[in-house]
Amino acid sequence: MAKNIKTKSVKSSKRTNGKAGGKLEALAKSVAEMAFRKKDPEVLIPARVLSNVAFNEKTRHVEMGDAKQSRSFFNYGQAKRFMQTLLVASKCKELIDRDKTASIRQIYYLSKHTIKGTSEKTFDDQNESDPIIEDVEVAIDALREELHVFASNRGNLVGPITLVDAGNTLDCAAMGSAGYAVPSIVEADVIQFKKCTAKFILHVEKDTVWRRFHEDRFWQTHNCIVSHGGGQPARGMRRLLQRMHEELKLPVYVLLDNDPWGYYIYSVIKHGSINLAYESRRMAIPDAVFLGVSSFDYERCEMSDDVKIELDDADIKRAKQIANYPWFANKRPWQKEIKKMLQNGFKMEVEAMISKDLSYLTEEYVPMKIKDKKQWLD
Amino acid sequence: MAKNIKTKSVKSSKRTNGKAGGKLEALAKSVAEMAFRKKDPEVLIPARVLSNVAFNEKTRHVEMGDAKQSRSFFNYGQAKRFMQTLLVASKCKELIDRDKTASIRQIYYLSKHTIKGTSEKTFDDQNESDPIIEDVEVAIDALREELHVFASNRGNLVGPITLVDAGNTLDCAAMGSAGYAVPSIVEADVIQFKKCTAKFILHVEKDTVWRRFHEDRFWQTHNCIVSHGGGQPARGMRRLLQRMHEELKLPVYVLLDNDPWGYYIYSVIKHGSINLAYESRRMAIPDAVFLGVSSFDYERCEMSDDVKIELDDADIKRAKQIANYPWFANKRPWQKEIKKMLQNGFKMEVEAMISKDLSYLTEEYVPMKIKDKKQWLD
Repeated sequence: MAKNIKTKSVKSSKRTNGKAGGKLEALAKSVAEMAFRKKDPEVLIPARVLSNVAFNEKTRHVEMGDAKQSRSFFNYGQAKRFMQTLLVASKCKELIDRDKTASIRQIYYLSKHTIKGTSEKTFDDQNESDPIIEDVEVAIDALREELHVFASNRGNLVGPITLVDAGNTLDCAAMGSAGYAVPSIVEADVIQFKKCTAKFILHVEKDTVWRRFHEDRFWQTHNCIVSHGGGQPARGMRRLLQRMHEELKLPVYVLLDNDPWGYYIYSVIKHGSINLAYESRRMAIPDAVFLGVSSFDYERCEMSDDVKIELDDADIKRAKQIANYPWFANKRPWQKEIKKMLQNGFKMEVEAMISKDLSYLTEEYVPMKIKDKKQWLD
Repeated sequence: MAKNIKTKSVKSSKRTNGKAGGKLEALAKSVAEMAFRKKDPEVLIPARVLSNVAFNEKTRHVEMGDAKQSRSFFNYGQAKRFMQTLLVASKCKELIDRDKTASIRQIYYLSKHTIKGTSEKTFDDQNESDPIIEDVEVAIDALREELHVFASNRGNLVGPITLVDAGNTLDCAAMGSAGYAVPSIVEADVIQFKKCTAKFILHVEKDTVWRRFHEDRFWQTHNCIVSHGGGQPARGMRRLLQRMHEELKLPVYVLLDNDPWGYYIYSVIKHGSINLAYESRRMAIPDAVFLGVSSFDYERCEMSDDVKIELDDADIKRAKQIANYPWFANKRPWQKEIKKMLQNGFKMEVEAMISKDLSYLTEEYVPMKIKDKKQWLD
């Protein structure tokens, strides 16, 4: 059943810009007004610290709380960061006005200069400017992408969806052997969905696994979209998954390695990340389902011991941390899953499944997992 | 002037397979015959060691010499690697026969098993199987891609070229904001060129720089293809650049960071790599031109000192090594270039150029570089 997506009033680039641009202008005005009123100019920035992050049971998002930090001009310890915050904000405003985008590295180079009459640089290192970009994001409650700042492109997908990307209409079922390259900025002013007949999304961890599914035409046989994020998915991929899930009502199934890193990737896709908790509502997919690889699959699928990779101390420590995440702590199936991995004493990669046969993964394992809801981890 | 590419007799998948498949069969037969003749079965493998690598002044390729190493069954020190070589070769033959491909990690999992009657594994680690794959490549003189083994996908391009990839016709000028994703296997049975009006290729190091060129529509203004390799370009990108250069007669200009790593990437694109010298004739582009960033550009382009990144000891050591590469040692301009970097005491990134202006790179720097041949480094 083909869904022909009703084109919403597509936000024009200008209109989106107007929103974040307007917020940046408001920020600048409030600072200027404080100065004119002879008050110490300050910027209030929601605190991006662990103590200000909580799990919202209702939305199932990792969310940021209300704590704020002030950054003021006449505070000796804050003056430099105050200056840096306004500098980065002004560069973002410039990007928006010129309708250009820049990488975080480019923001660093655009913002770096020697302060007049001194030998002091505005920034000595990109490590200084990166957190400032995040500060500006939270201060005006805008996504990085709305500030016209992009991350690396990473991730590809294939399947029966036609979308418009930067004005180009693309049939993602016919984009060649590497599929559609997911860009860093996938907001509605850049990407619009046109037509989709897919029934679900299968997201896999690595491009080599993805290629297995593409080559075996899994997306065609099962009428779905298959995507990968090249490891921990970049913001563009997470946001696009979320948009397809929300706007096209596609269930999202995730296939990751059976190791703490795989659990963590799932956790971020589903609930959001602790570091970037302020983005969860635009990035998280609370209904995402973990298909595998599960610690129980070793016995369930009668794997040979060729697939075993011994857990090291770091794995064990990380697994225990993840088991204690508030969003896993109260879930019996997840507690059993992680406990079983620790009991096994080994981890397993998705690719290891092919030691049975090259197409075991695509023709038996995943179809079986999708069919048998009892094996899903939520 | 549109080049409509005459379609050569496109090799069918079957025919290409036949070639490498036939060579694998011949290898197996020769081993079996030795056994039947009660000789010690052996495989001869061209030596992949530095002493067997030389620069061919005529082809300007880094090439492998004629030295060979024997690997025989009844030699205690070689028996395991002999077994591994034949095992990997047989897995590749299987891939070819089934018309499937696998990653090097998948080859590892496909080949790993416990040897009957022992507790010994055929492979303990992927570090053991990776060099064996290279051994098989050189032993039968086939590219990895012809053995149906793929590396990671990495790299994208945009520009006026229409190609057919896995049966999909793709206009690379209209592939969205992340461009055409270059796959790992780009041989003629997978990718055919259909139409190309581009006059040259600009290859840049990083995707963030590439995005700058795409966003500023450089490929449209200058009627060219702009590609990036996400750092050191993967095999797929190098091979595709070489095919476009050879078959479409497109000059290749390279834009890389002004650091030893940038010099090295250029060296590999142009002459081939020392590690994989046996692939040079299919990968190297001896006519590739280094546009920049040059050590002389700091003064030439009147950059501010914001762009300076101090050289560390490793940089200095590496720069001296590269200056001594036979293919740079006799070139005065390269000696001056590297010497100047050492004198400067700093390196510069391509992205640093935008500290002048966001579009300085695309609107002034590169057009100036392309125009003024005296600035080219060959």
